[in-house]
Amino acid sequence: MIVVMKPDATKEQIQAMIKKIEDKGLKTILLEGTNRNVIAAIGDKREIPPEFWDRQPTVERTVPILAPYKMASRELRPETTTVPIDGQVLGGRKVGIIAGPCTVESREQVLEIAHAVKEAGALALRGGAFKPRTSPYSFQGLMEEGLEILALAGEETGLPIVSEVLTAEHVPLVSKYVDVLQVGTRNMTNFLLLKAVGESDKPVLLKRGMSAQLEEFLLAAEYVLSQGNPNVILCERGIRTFETNTRFTLSLTVVPQLKELSHLPVLVDPSHATGKRSLVPPMAKAAIAAGADGVILEVHPKPEEAWVDGPQTLSLKEFEKLMADLRRLAPAVDREI
Amino acid sequence: MIVVMKPDATKEQIQAMIKKIEDKGLKTILLEGTNRNVIAAIGDKREIPPEFWDRQPTVERTVPILAPYKMASRELRPETTTVPIDGQVLGGRKVGIIAGPCTVESREQVLEIAHAVKEAGALALRGGAFKPRTSPYSFQGLMEEGLEILALAGEETGLPIVSEVLTAEHVPLVSKYVDVLQVGTRNMTNFLLLKAVGESDKPVLLKRGMSAQLEEFLLAAEYVLSQGNPNVILCERGIRTFETNTRFTLSLTVVPQLKELSHLPVLVDPSHATGKRSLVPPMAKAAIAAGADGVILEVHPKPEEAWVDGPQTLSLKEFEKLMADLRRLAPAVDREI
Amino acid sequence: MIVVMKPDATKEQIQAMIKKIEDKGLKTILLEGTNRNVIAAIGDKREIPPEFWDRQPTVERTVPILAPYKMASRELRPETTTVPIDGQVLGGRKVGIIAGPCTVESREQVLEIAHAVKEAGALALRGGAFKPRTSPYSFQGLMEEGLEILALAGEETGLPIVSEVLTAEHVPLVSKYVDVLQVGTRNMTNFLLLKAVGESDKPVLLKRGMSAQLEEFLLAAEYVLSQGNPNVILCERGIRTFETNTRFTLSLTVVPQLKELSHLPVLVDPSHATGKRSLVPPMAKAAIAAGADGVILEVHPKPEEAWVDGPQTLSLKEFEKLMADLRRLAPAVDREI
Amino acid sequence: MIVVMKPDATKEQIQAMIKKIEDKGLKTILLEGTNRNVIAAIGDKREIPPEFWDRQPTVERTVPILAPYKMASRELRPETTTVPIDGQVLGGRKVGIIAGPCTVESREQVLEIAHAVKEAGALALRGGAFKPRTSPYSFQGLMEEGLEILALAGEETGLPIVSEVLTAEHVPLVSKYVDVLQVGTRNMTNFLLLKAVGESDKPVLLKRGMSAQLEEFLLAAEYVLSQGNPNVILCERGIRTFETNTRFTLSLTVVPQLKELSHLPVLVDPSHATGKRSLVPPMAKAAIAAGADGVILEVHPKPEEAWVDGPQTLSLKEFEKLMADLRRLAPAVDREI
Repeated sequence: MIVVMKPDATKEQIQAMIKKIEDKGLKTILLEGTNRNVIAAIGDKREIPPEFWDRQPTVERTVPILAPYKMASRELRPETTTVPIDGQVLGGRKVGIIAGPCTVESREQVLEIAHAVKEAGALALRGGAFKPRTSPYSFQGLMEEGLEILALAGEETGLPIVSEVLTAEHVPLVSKYVDVLQVGTRNMTNFLLLKAVGESDKPVLLKRGMSAQLEEFLLAAEYVLSQGNPNVILCERGIRTFETNTRFTLSLTVVPQLKELSHLPVLVDPSHATGKRSLVPPMAKAAIAAGADGVILEVHPKPEEAWVDGPQTLSLKEFEKLMADLRRLAPAVDREI
Repeated sequence: MIVVMKPDATKEQIQAMIKKIEDKGLKTILLEGTNRNVIAAIGDKREIPPEFWDRQPTVERTVPILAPYKMASRELRPETTTVPIDGQVLGGRKVGIIAGPCTVESREQVLEIAHAVKEAGALALRGGAFKPRTSPYSFQGLMEEGLEILALAGEETGLPIVSEVLTAEHVPLVSKYVDVLQVGTRNMTNFLLLKAVGESDKPVLLKRGMSAQLEEFLLAAEYVLSQGNPNVILCERGIRTFETNTRFTLSLTVVPQLKELSHLPVLVDPSHATGKRSLVPPMAKAAIAAGADGVILEVHPKPEEAWVDGPQTLSLKEFEKLMADLRRLAPAVDREI
Repeated sequence: MIVVMKPDATKEQIQAMIKKIEDKGLKTILLEGTNRNVIAAIGDKREIPPEFWDRQPTVERTVPILAPYKMASRELRPETTTVPIDGQVLGGRKVGIIAGPCTVESREQVLEIAHAVKEAGALALRGGAFKPRTSPYSFQGLMEEGLEILALAGEETGLPIVSEVLTAEHVPLVSKYVDVLQVGTRNMTNFLLLKAVGESDKPVLLKRGMSAQLEEFLLAAEYVLSQGNPNVILCERGIRTFETNTRFTLSLTVVPQLKELSHLPVLVDPSHATGKRSLVPPMAKAAIAAGADGVILEVHPKPEEAWVDGPQTLSLKEFEKLMADLRRLAPAVDREI
Repeated sequence: MIVVMKPDATKEQIQAMIKKIEDKGLKTILLEGTNRNVIAAIGDKREIPPEFWDRQPTVERTVPILAPYKMASRELRPETTTVPIDGQVLGGRKVGIIAGPCTVESREQVLEIAHAVKEAGALALRGGAFKPRTSPYSFQGLMEEGLEILALAGEETGLPIVSEVLTAEHVPLVSKYVDVLQVGTRNMTNFLLLKAVGESDKPVLLKRGMSAQLEEFLLAAEYVLSQGNPNVILCERGIRTFETNTRFTLSLTVVPQLKELSHLPVLVDPSHATGKRSLVPPMAKAAIAAGADGVILEVHPKPEEAWVDGPQTLSLKEFEKLMADLRRLAPAVDREI
């Protein structure tokens, strides 16, 4: 940690600050500069809360040298993590495609989709039973009935099931039916939920908050990991920027960045990021080319009748075509499907 | 609703779309343009979910004419709402100042602050007992013990208590001790929590999500209102932008905007928005000048020892000075403290 | 154009607005809604300035149906444009790679790079002679001497030269030496410069402003096209968002979007977007997978000694390796190098 | 400057980096940490270009301790600057109001406005003769004829004239007619223009780029100052964020921030920032309450007929009312008009 003192900090104030830091068990070096005095605090004490550093009135600012997350960091765990999902694996050489409807509508709908995506080569089936909706007047999901349908589709096809959980209290219920617990973008800072899925034995698909810095995203993963659950899958799904032509701005550069900073597998969700069907296939390809371990996609037999997110949903035929394209692309970046 | 058809939509497709709209009970007018055909759908049917409109493949885009929220809108409820808080009122001519520590640390700390802010003229005491923290290694609050301390301070000073609730399941517990339930920026899209506070009889202080559009903010308020709780206080607390010199970007223009769009009272939180003590007083003044119904501030007897958010916390003396300044300012914009 | 009148607009005000619109030569249809009256203005009159519509006090807002650009739009010119560059072509099946130093430092440096990138298969050589620098204390480029060196490298290798022009007055000078005039992100709204390059007979490589909406970007292209220069190459180079881990946020989704909206070729600049060497190769691959017509890259024999932008610059060896990777990737998305 | 070496940097690489730094005339201290080695470079050498630090491949990142601007910084020039404008002064106790039409339309229009704003107490008259317009099809200004009209209005009323200059080559022409040269938001990074106005003897009103960090804004001011022109007025005019309800997001917090970082006077432009007439008066008041030295406003006798920017333009009556409100407000924040 580098502590930049205010230009008018007195010798006594600097000494007091040095003492405070050494009381925390760190070594210090005082750097007397031309316009500023700077204290370097040496030692790895990430458990000192960040606020300790900044609250002193004689401090202008502090600059951390180490990342605030540990278990999520590649520096502390260099080997790449692969997440086992019901016999499959995410994060290895094989690229994993997760597909399914935005929301569970009926048994027939889900089964039709499940069989189709299975046949096309998907790794897992996604589907929403509990839906976080911006408007109280929008459809909120079939809830437990939806989970039952998903579980049935899983049994029929052998596909693992990915579904979102909205609150800590739902974790046991959702875990009964699904193989991967999804934490959505609107819940990335629901820390009680992060702790609850951290205590679960199911893998967690953690979507990046739409305005989360990478550090905050990895700290959210750290919440899960620090509760004892090692199976976290990171997922970029678009951030909020000034761009209004798409629903969000897909920030694909975070794929290689997350790979550098962390050992966890990284997925991309081009459906929610773009919000537009025609943009999903090129961005799915771009995600794989950027090094993503997979993509998660919305598909529906009749997108024009989907209850939720129709405009960004691929038809089964479009999905099949995309799978064929990805199968061609993967080897060109030393991956396979 | 204005429905812009794709340039290549056929007559049959246009007629099919018109039929779909009329089946929803709306009247339609077809506007045949030079490059596009546009269908105007007439009637106030906000209960049709927004996704109905966009999922048709022959539709290029749709443009809503009416806001998607109703109960929060000034158009449907022109008279300004005032929220009663334990004998006080927020949203009238009087500007309300809510102040207190970021987090409850001890009985002594809270009582000292409570007496000081009461004396300086605050309307209510704020304090965090359950804290949403970005890092799992940061202090997470004293929890119920913190609530007990806050309630005691409320009894001793007569100040109403404002404190954050993190999850639907905590609503009964927190309600036992506090007068106003705060929903934080990280929970503005925790829809289960919004519903739960909507079923409570306590006023709700709803902070804007750090990346929420105004429409999304008012839809969050609509979640609370639509459950039967009419007492919602909106609070701007800074948004996430490219600016890195402050913790967030305080968007004060939303104060007069929210006043135009909604009948609900509007607060401003300059402490979290700026993250820097010296910027809090000028932005508190600016908030009142912009028409806010009050500000919510972090104060601490010794900001340099505050467990959380010290850099943005006013000392009791700074708070007193700011109250004096605001007392001078308010009449110049036809308000009082 | 859809004109939404204010809820309290009187019949007379609505009639007055209808008359104003019809005086502009458009047909109107009045849509009398439950809560709003809306006037549809029919006809393609993009030459009516946008401000005409919004300045009436009885108008709540207006919604354009047609894009404000014409010559840049694919709707009005469906066939894809290819830009001839000194015997080469950009925008066809072949992916074009433009590479070179951020700034011209010396004859030796440029010649070494030119030969290396030529051999590796680059389409053109880039290099900065006039440099827009954020700080007045940074190196501002070798100016005309730099152009002479670039022209020499072009002669020696046969590579076309791409270099930035900073102001309208420099257009003749820069045109004497280079084959493609680059307009940088900081000049995308320098409308006098856009007009000047529009009057030139050199192709224009137009970088997107770092905070430009797509519509504004295409209007900047329209400035060039409307002066008679049909050879505009669009280039995405990262936008300014809240992300601080990279220099900018590369918004690759604009590649397929621009392809839908416009007939112009689209390049991507992963060097400036990411600002970090290790992120350039994955994002170059992702750009091609997303459908870009090429990438523009910074390379240097010794990036650690580059005068400008060293951290994002590839070594010649890294560039060679990336070319080989792209050569493998291109056929998997039906392109070639 | 703090130089964080990569975790795998060898002793030799660290020594090589230390030598490079010392060769630049700085002292170094090596901080050997648990996970990283850090080199502190001591001395004030802002003339070393920022890129020197970052281009070394063994460096993870560098953290500047000092701001990169000097002449604009309050640290190096503690006394507040006041800018003389044709007998008036901006930046002192008196708040300065600059008002006028977005664009010069005719002699009658300008004279009517000039007399009205003079009478209401404005410090100067603004008006656009050369207009930067997003669309090539929009009105581009009356050019020199517009300047002549402005100069005439200045003579008749005694008001100093503020008008925008678009390119370095226009500086002599515009200077012939006006008292303050305005550099618009789209030109804040037009460095040739900044240098040209820096060589002028006219005060410069420098608007913040819509996506400029404060540091970049102050570096733009530094361009002007470093050419010998000490009279720079900073102006916040809204930044580009995800908010779509207003034209831009007015970031008022920069007012007290700029006052801390710099000695230059600070204006606010609520007209362009909000884009909406009804929001201009509250934000003008908020600007003054936040500590701004003045506001710059668009006014027009008939906003509904203004050629440009009508929706955000105040009528003369609205302007008069706002002036009365500001006159009441100013003393409450120890200012006057």
